[in-house]
Amino acid sequence: MEKPQRSPRERMVYEAAQAMREDGVGGAALRTVATRAAAPRGSLQHYFPGGKDQLVTEALEWSGEFAAAQVRAYLRDTRRPSPSGMFNDLVRQWAAELEDRQFARGCPVAASVVDTANANPQVRAAAAAALATWQKPLRSGLRTMGVRPARAAALATLMLAALEGSLVLARAERDTHALRVVSRELAPLLDAALP
Amino acid sequence: MEKPQRSPRERMVYEAAQAMREDGVGGAALRTVATRAAAPRGSLQHYFPGGKDQLVTEALEWSGEFAAAQVRAYLRDTRRPSPSGMFNDLVRQWAAELEDRQFARGCPVAASVVDTANANPQVRAAAAAALATWQKPLRSGLRTMGVRPARAAALATLMLAALEGSLVLARAERDTHALRVVSRELAPLLDAALP
Repeated sequence: MEKPQRSPRERMVYEAAQAMREDGVGGAALRTVATRAAAPRGSLQHYFPGGKDQLVTEALEWSGEFAAAQVRAYLRDTRRPSPSGMFNDLVRQWAAELEDRQFARGCPVAASVVDTANANPQVRAAAAAALATWQKPLRSGLRTMGVRPARAAALATLMLAALEGSLVLARAERDTHALRVVSRELAPLLDAALP
Repeated sequence: MEKPQRSPRERMVYEAAQAMREDGVGGAALRTVATRAAAPRGSLQHYFPGGKDQLVTEALEWSGEFAAAQVRAYLRDTRRPSPSGMFNDLVRQWAAELEDRQFARGCPVAASVVDTANANPQVRAAAAAALATWQKPLRSGLRTMGVRPARAAALATLMLAALEGSLVLARAERDTHALRVVSRELAPLLDAALP
């Protein structure tokens, strides 16, 4: 995830997402977010009167949109998109990111679910919304390739589940092996859904 | 995961795992763990001189062994074990647990990775060890069924990744749909590895 040139408010949302990716929602300290965003003191309260929940919720919205945009970029820029190509593009970008940053940053959605699904319905709902945002272009991409609707929905779910899980394995193992295995194993299954 | 009848020390390890499953490692308060384990004051320091890291590490060891025992029970008790049957048994137990507890408790290994992979090498290594413990009976079960070794290792990785990821989706969505989809989609792929 490249650091965008944005307003202080947008920088705070971006840095909140990055902090969640590193240390979970509990570990994402507001002070660190403000410092990294080079935001003036008091601006967190100013921009996010709903406090940390609001910031985390917006960070999840941002993350869902960012992930969806990556999928749309694949669909737009690829001459012959395929189900396995679309999944592998996701896996490849995540593997590169993990290696570039020594496995420091995982998925902010997974982080928020693990830390808040039990006790924070607002953040939990934002995580579900981010996953839905991410799944949308996967599903519509598959449909455009000719996969029938019900199967496209199922395969989009499978892709996200396999990706989220292999990120957990890869960060635990400090090795992108699991991502590569999952991408290779799922490729024939995904492409077999084509008409 | 049933509550076992055990020593105070074992109860603390068990309750630490449950607290991590609910609120992540950051949210798992030592005070809560001690209270739930009905452990006398001071016993945390007594049994776990290495503090929270030691408790979390032992909770991950316990979790890996618990998960591996579930797989071994399937292999022992099933007349005709199959790759899809083994995976579906895992998925079924997790789905039942999620529904019984209103999605309050996820996987403690995923929780520890999300919260500590960046900043706590000891806990991160314990998470990797727990995943290895869990994968072992999956891999050896597949080999006993006739799957060749390299493929058995790959499919065990795929199973854990798909399970971990679909738990994230299910808790976000408060719905076991993702677990059912993943189990159904992977079944033919898993069984096609049989000789």
